[in-house]
Amino acid sequence: MSPRTTRVVCLRRRPAKEPVPGDFAVEERPLPLLGEGQVLVRNLYMSVDPSMRGRLETTEKHYTHNFTPGSPLDGRALGVVEESRCPAVPPGAFVRHQLGWRERVVLNGTDTDGAARIDPRLAPLPTWLGLLGQTGFTAYVGLTRIAELRPGDTVFVSAAAGAVGTAAGQFARLLGADHVVGTAGGPGKCALLVEEFGYDAAADYRAEPVRDALARMAPEGIDVYFDNVGGEQLAAALHALRTGGRVALCGMMSQFGGERRTVDINHLVQAVLKRLTLSGFIVRDHDDLRPEFEQRVAGWLAEGRITARETVVDGLENAAGALLSLLGGGNVGKMLVRLAD
Amino acid sequence: MSPRTTRVVCLRRRPAKEPVPGDFAVEERPLPLLGEGQVLVRNLYMSVDPSMRGRLETTEKHYTHNFTPGSPLDGRALGVVEESRCPAVPPGAFVRHQLGWRERVVLNGTDTDGAARIDPRLAPLPTWLGLLGQTGFTAYVGLTRIAELRPGDTVFVSAAAGAVGTAAGQFARLLGADHVVGTAGGPGKCALLVEEFGYDAAADYRAEPVRDALARMAPEGIDVYFDNVGGEQLAAALHALRTGGRVALCGMMSQFGGERRTVDINHLVQAVLKRLTLSGFIVRDHDDLRPEFEQRVAGWLAEGRITARETVVDGLENAAGALLSLLGGGNVGKMLVRLAD
Repeated sequence: MSPRTTRVVCLRRRPAKEPVPGDFAVEERPLPLLGEGQVLVRNLYMSVDPSMRGRLETTEKHYTHNFTPGSPLDGRALGVVEESRCPAVPPGAFVRHQLGWRERVVLNGTDTDGAARIDPRLAPLPTWLGLLGQTGFTAYVGLTRIAELRPGDTVFVSAAAGAVGTAAGQFARLLGADHVVGTAGGPGKCALLVEEFGYDAAADYRAEPVRDALARMAPEGIDVYFDNVGGEQLAAALHALRTGGRVALCGMMSQFGGERRTVDINHLVQAVLKRLTLSGFIVRDHDDLRPEFEQRVAGWLAEGRITARETVVDGLENAAGALLSLLGGGNVGKMLVRLAD
Repeated sequence: MSPRTTRVVCLRRRPAKEPVPGDFAVEERPLPLLGEGQVLVRNLYMSVDPSMRGRLETTEKHYTHNFTPGSPLDGRALGVVEESRCPAVPPGAFVRHQLGWRERVVLNGTDTDGAARIDPRLAPLPTWLGLLGQTGFTAYVGLTRIAELRPGDTVFVSAAAGAVGTAAGQFARLLGADHVVGTAGGPGKCALLVEEFGYDAAADYRAEPVRDALARMAPEGIDVYFDNVGGEQLAAALHALRTGGRVALCGMMSQFGGERRTVDINHLVQAVLKRLTLSGFIVRDHDDLRPEFEQRVAGWLAEGRITARETVVDGLENAAGALLSLLGGGNVGKMLVRLAD
């Protein structure tokens, strides 16, 4: 008999300041009966994303809903079909969807908002949430369409050891960048960036002013900045950018964290002096690029030209902890929760 | 006999903080003898520009040289040829050039860097430095190419009563904007913006937070922000911009002025949430647009669809004061110095 309930991760309350474990709770929720065209999916992996941080707040949002206290979180996940009333998606099929943070879920089998089948022979399951998923696609769109990366460019990536950052550095090189530098928190991550992820140089943003690090790592300046953090690193990049430089604004993690000092918005005068362009983007505006992206990245993976790396935490009861760890910089590459094998 | 010297305005010393009259001096300098192909020009009007403020400093610059203590200032000017060894530019011709801040100057007659003839029948002389000059061209390039103004857009212009601002508001309307709002310093300027310059609404940035003013003047949000000031007004615009909004970064006057409070660069998270693009620009990168610009603006002027307005100060000895007045917001429209009739 089908399971009638599933365990879910709920937001218990909005964080007072920085989120803490008590802001989340694992609860039991009913599962609806399978309707015509629907599938019951057992989640195997789910994605833990920095963008969830902003969705814990009540502040204005424009591209997605915020989480609601008392309700389950959501996010990208990958699972296997256990029951199906949708012929196109039979039991045993692997699907990717938007309703993680729960062990099981009932989805429409063919909607674009529902379950999308993936081919596990093309790449391991975690890779479908990482380099071949929204994470890799974010790096690809940011570099190609937003920052208009050109062969020979020097590229700077912040949060370079994160999921998007490890993808962006490798993609930049394969797309023709001449010199790729990054920043991360701590010497261990910096070593990995150079040894595993093809960065030419990496600097610990906690150990020295990023402006000094950029002057050392890219003394001739940079052409592209892939910004995941904002704040001091964005200001430093504005000074390091060469005439005509481009900034892909992907996220601004430095807006969180209480004791941060304010960095002056008028560093943007550099954009006037050097004709810089800064563009924010939301990856799902660019789905027309997805076939090109999947073909190229699958090719790079098959040729062994690119390293996929995940930080995997086991069990739904550890999922909130995985989010808190991510927000504290505890991951290298993609942060995932494994819910079943 | 030709004059052998000319009076010039020199930078005596770099300003300690805000520039003061004693930082400048009128001095007598020799004039070179006229070479083959050269003309002696008596300046009639010269342009006083906010961008001169940054050039008084030693900080990094990328698109033009800074002024040097002991040397004359320079800037756009318009004069009449008194002597000529260049057949294409005879005595009596009117020319526009880059060497203002002096009464007379020897120039090459036909270089692009030298004197360029203008036709005084097309528009009054001051207009050639204002709406038909670099000032108007800056507004035109910023709106059309940088902010990609579209019919129906709502446009916000800061420093709207200044030279570029009065041009930008009027051009925006004639280029199809649906709603044009601006900010300026003081109720008098705000009244002028609505009565003379076609703004739908204007607010005194000194009297209320610009974020509140925008919520009142453009409750549905804005599509384009023409930024002349940076700082708090830029942050307010980032919050008011609608999805897909565009910012033309033209100048950042709020970077000067000592007691200003720092505004957080992470207001740029709005650019991520709403896919905004911010682009700095330097007008002379866009000279290909100049014929189109001159034709359209000359047409609007001839049809009486546009108001040219200048603040005119007389005499080289008052020129430094005119610059200080401009930096304090003492002008409406283009600030000019008249050197002779």
